[in-house]
Amino acid sequence: MKGIPPVPEGECSLIEEIKGRFSSRDSGVLVGIGDDASMLSTPGSPLLVTTDAMVEGVHFDLSIMTPFQVGYKLAVSNISDIHAMGGRPAWAQLALSVDSGRAEGFVDGFFDGLKDALDRYGVVLTGGDLTGSRGVISVSLSLLGLSGERVFKRNGANPGDWIYLTGPLGEPSIGFYLLKRLGLPVAFERGERLELEGETVWMEHLIRRFVLPELPDAPVQYGDRITSMIDISDGLSLDLWRICHQSGVGATLIEDDLPITPQMKMAAEQTGIELLGHILGGGEDYQLLFTSPEDIPDFYRIGRITSDGFLILRKTGREEKLPLRGYQHLVSV
Amino acid sequence: MKGIPPVPEGECSLIEEIKGRFSSRDSGVLVGIGDDASMLSTPGSPLLVTTDAMVEGVHFDLSIMTPFQVGYKLAVSNISDIHAMGGRPAWAQLALSVDSGRAEGFVDGFFDGLKDALDRYGVVLTGGDLTGSRGVISVSLSLLGLSGERVFKRNGANPGDWIYLTGPLGEPSIGFYLLKRLGLPVAFERGERLELEGETVWMEHLIRRFVLPELPDAPVQYGDRITSMIDISDGLSLDLWRICHQSGVGATLIEDDLPITPQMKMAAEQTGIELLGHILGGGEDYQLLFTSPEDIPDFYRIGRITSDGFLILRKTGREEKLPLRGYQHLVSV
Repeated sequence: MKGIPPVPEGECSLIEEIKGRFSSRDSGVLVGIGDDASMLSTPGSPLLVTTDAMVEGVHFDLSIMTPFQVGYKLAVSNISDIHAMGGRPAWAQLALSVDSGRAEGFVDGFFDGLKDALDRYGVVLTGGDLTGSRGVISVSLSLLGLSGERVFKRNGANPGDWIYLTGPLGEPSIGFYLLKRLGLPVAFERGERLELEGETVWMEHLIRRFVLPELPDAPVQYGDRITSMIDISDGLSLDLWRICHQSGVGATLIEDDLPITPQMKMAAEQTGIELLGHILGGGEDYQLLFTSPEDIPDFYRIGRITSDGFLILRKTGREEKLPLRGYQHLVSV
Repeated sequence: MKGIPPVPEGECSLIEEIKGRFSSRDSGVLVGIGDDASMLSTPGSPLLVTTDAMVEGVHFDLSIMTPFQVGYKLAVSNISDIHAMGGRPAWAQLALSVDSGRAEGFVDGFFDGLKDALDRYGVVLTGGDLTGSRGVISVSLSLLGLSGERVFKRNGANPGDWIYLTGPLGEPSIGFYLLKRLGLPVAFERGERLELEGETVWMEHLIRRFVLPELPDAPVQYGDRITSMIDISDGLSLDLWRICHQSGVGATLIEDDLPITPQMKMAAEQTGIELLGHILGGGEDYQLLFTSPEDIPDFYRIGRITSDGFLILRKTGREEKLPLRGYQHLVSV
């Protein structure tokens, strides 16, 4: 016998492998993966922290998503929250629970997808916890970011402010609907394509928006002209309600001004889905909604903050109550 | 119709309630629970970050633990990691996934226990994610702390250093064994006692150590005299191995010097359990193991760092290989 025993199988050897894969040079990481805690050098600006969890059977389904896509979305959903505060994402801590029997088929692709998204947005994985589970895979990420010059909160909207979007809503939700009908994962990340008869480019576009969402640039350049901001993760209605609730105001959306892409039109024509439901309540859009009293070009203006009421001006010219149909967890499943 | 709709049931109203319960005044929290991210004011010292997850059926079993105890342990296991780096825990982010049907019976007690431990160690809950689940409750906490004057890493042990413990090991593991035999949760937090015939004080002591562990003071006052430190969460063997592996050294433990409490002796006499297995491989002790070339009073000296080999000097006078029987996740469950 020479030396101490080698790295044991399981968590220990996995940590060694992850350490190698996630390099953390020149990123403020003073102590990285593999100690009791990681140590980070903050440059003095306030810190932003957010956490998102994804649970198998609730947030993802491995019969229609690849492990890569699960890891990618976990990162993106967190990064979107830091963007929505006007900050720069920097460091991430992961909790991953998976049954040992399924670890081999999940972990590798999951970390590839996580790393792909983290790298894209300049985030370093600093540590976490890898544990067993009992039949259900669950992952959660806590993301630390550095605040920018100005912080965008949810509680600053004023009556008279315009409501803006960074991009169209509803594509991921329609993509999810199409993906469920397809019933198979599509590994876009490995160059896979839909193998269906006919013209499927619009369909690929929508499914891709669901499994590998891309984040818009935050309108940070408009600084003080923005009064509130939130990222649309649970659907336009519910996230706009959050702005209204925290700002003590109301809102009126204008149906005619809600952006609709050609691919969404194709989906409506080909499958008969009703677009407004997906736009208002689909969720997982990761577009930013913000309010401003001023004219902000380059963004979609979709309504106005009011002193009271929570309404949508329909194409018919009638104002209707805006239903709170965003996705809410812990409500009856 | 007046005003916007009220707080919807489910996640939203739960967040409102939690916001009220976890006050964050005067704790460096610039933006707290309820925005896209929380915003924290760091005083310039480097930040420590750690994450621990607990999954139902793997780390806890609600047939023998109360939700309070689950929340309490989640906090304590994270705080212990920050202590092991010589830091001061400050802020926590929670991910909680629970089926809606079981949320009511779990969430309230869980948050009480979480808050009890966080308050005790001066930590503020700054945010997180509350989601549904599918049959398995999982919780994870990311804890942020501020580093102290000196940071204690795992990789500084040198041959000739003594190996120290802040307290006896094995009590929680024996408590877990007794609790499984009991087959019922004991709500010590509400003043409950064991309802068994005969003398059960020793048994209560051990079970309590498992469900409501108390953290030792870290030996920070010895500063530079300490060469490495780790908290014992997966068992003495495995956590000592981590020190050895990262420091490039070996170790020899001395069985005779491993502390044994009167309650552990009682357990061995009354139930016939073998103490050494619980001491070496039990885990969840949350005592600190550290190394130093100097004589450090007030702590248990249990062995010595060597240049090579991973051994225990048995009471028989023979040196044996130290088995790596700590608890490792993601090994075959």
